[in-house]
Amino acid sequence: PITTPTLLEEAYTITIDVYCPYFAPFLHITIIKKVSTLKPNFNIFSITLTIGRRRRGSGSSPGACALARLRLGEGEPAAGGKGCAVVLDVGVLEVPLILPGFYGFIGEESVAAGEGSILTDNPTWIIDPIDGTTNFVHRFPFVAVSIGFVVNKKIEFGIVYSCVEDKMYTARKGKGAFCNGQKLQVSGQEDITKSLLVTELGSNRDPETIKIILSNMERLLSIPIHGIRAVGTAAVNMCLVATGGADAYYEMGIHCWDMAGAGIIITEAGGVLLDVSGGPFDLMSRRIIAASSRAIGERIAKALQIIPLKRDDATN
Amino acid sequence: PITTPTLLEEAYTITIDVYCPYFAPFLHITIIKKVSTLKPNFNIFSITLTIGRRRRGSGSSPGACALARLRLGEGEPAAGGKGCAVVLDVGVLEVPLILPGFYGFIGEESVAAGEGSILTDNPTWIIDPIDGTTNFVHRFPFVAVSIGFVVNKKIEFGIVYSCVEDKMYTARKGKGAFCNGQKLQVSGQEDITKSLLVTELGSNRDPETIKIILSNMERLLSIPIHGIRAVGTAAVNMCLVATGGADAYYEMGIHCWDMAGAGIIITEAGGVLLDVSGGPFDLMSRRIIAASSRAIGERIAKALQIIPLKRDDATN
Repeated sequence: PITTPTLLEEAYTITIDVYCPYFAPFLHITIIKKVSTLKPNFNIFSITLTIGRRRRGSGSSPGACALARLRLGEGEPAAGGKGCAVVLDVGVLEVPLILPGFYGFIGEESVAAGEGSILTDNPTWIIDPIDGTTNFVHRFPFVAVSIGFVVNKKIEFGIVYSCVEDKMYTARKGKGAFCNGQKLQVSGQEDITKSLLVTELGSNRDPETIKIILSNMERLLSIPIHGIRAVGTAAVNMCLVATGGADAYYEMGIHCWDMAGAGIIITEAGGVLLDVSGGPFDLMSRRIIAASSRAIGERIAKALQIIPLKRDDATN
Repeated sequence: PITTPTLLEEAYTITIDVYCPYFAPFLHITIIKKVSTLKPNFNIFSITLTIGRRRRGSGSSPGACALARLRLGEGEPAAGGKGCAVVLDVGVLEVPLILPGFYGFIGEESVAAGEGSILTDNPTWIIDPIDGTTNFVHRFPFVAVSIGFVVNKKIEFGIVYSCVEDKMYTARKGKGAFCNGQKLQVSGQEDITKSLLVTELGSNRDPETIKIILSNMERLLSIPIHGIRAVGTAAVNMCLVATGGADAYYEMGIHCWDMAGAGIIITEAGGVLLDVSGGPFDLMSRRIIAASSRAIGERIAKALQIIPLKRDDATN
């Protein structure tokens, strides 16, 4: 369940509490907005992920922790002490804007609970506590927490934490993309015939959709390309493109919360985001090409047959 | 290049020296056979992987090592000191057999160099120094060293070292399968509709082969199944089944050196190996189903259309 944001005079806190039976029994995402009298024109956010496990047969604490503690950025001291929780201090984000007072919130859980997902120009947190749900159920070792912060419909800040790998990917507009503190750079590959792609077969089992997904793969393989990989989470697939390990990712049928965190990680690593038509990327369209170069992105768009989809912000 | 085995009175050494520009500049696989007067009926093997990097601009030594040192088993002291090499002491294997004097050797590099790959009843090392060559070229983070030891055409011992993840998988007949010392167990899933599969699209770009590979996926997805993943190496895909993270792996077109190491890791973790026809697994057939249960393996076999392939031991 996602708690309603609490507005205090000097702190604005969003806490997301997710029960995670696999990688640990609980996950908290805490975002605190602070107002500093020294920097009145800045909104300062401190973001913390707390991943932990409770004692068996009790509601609280100890036991050995599966994940090593990781620190990134010069952030606030983490609010630790939650049993044996590992606290991941993602860092401090300073947004040089006078932001409107209202903050939107879009998350897989809130949409599933019946809330809408209209993206306005207001600052909006777009969050997927567990990207790679099927992996999660099967213990296939790729599961990510995805957080994107969007203002005027543009992604300002993105975080993808690949939990089992213990890799923290972050990016901020104009400031580069990083994985565990190391700067990321896409491959820059422009020749599709030398490319390695990532995509997914998806979860839709409608026969017509499966046919289009596979015939898209067939057209790409026949160009030819070097290969296609699929690790089972959109966010991690996109981060693999950001590292240069793959040259492009494409998919249709995913949601804004799968793309908002990793989208800016791609662009800050030097990559491009496109719509599957080859036009501009649209966060609410449920489709994406994330490529190491415009040339590869456009060549993929040329090969793809488009799957009809209801947008994330569709009102009916 | 693979050096010709040296036969000494008390030691039999195979050293494989591979130049690896990605995960480290060199990889040595050293297998030493020892004869102990205390155990005259045993062949004792000590196996070591040495992964290291040379100093830039020189032929030898230091610099920080990317991989942490890892120890498994109670093995011989590793022959370290190779510059900044990381020496992975895989352990000591005691084979309770009077083995014939001749040891065969099958490896991707030796076959590429024109040597045959007829599997006899002689003890045979089947080795792939780099499984996941396309990943390796692209720096997609799954590359493995695969070593299988086969006697009377049965796998006695298997090692898969997933280099970037730093995961050492080992198994010995009747003694279980392990990853970094932790015992492995397959999921045991018997219901195909609840399964997550791993496979690959392969490197063959013949249009007819691509069509069969994709139509096999279509038939499996339509059963339905939960999903299909592909990390780009047969050995790692199989090890993921051994951990329980996926429920089965199938592929046609791979080689004995892709399967020999991981094959016994699957069976020692409680899984089964089948031919894609549903019949008995054949190491030289270039095809495999590695499943967490016979039921799932046979259901996959029922769905698969078979790709015609020349066997690894074909003589023409």
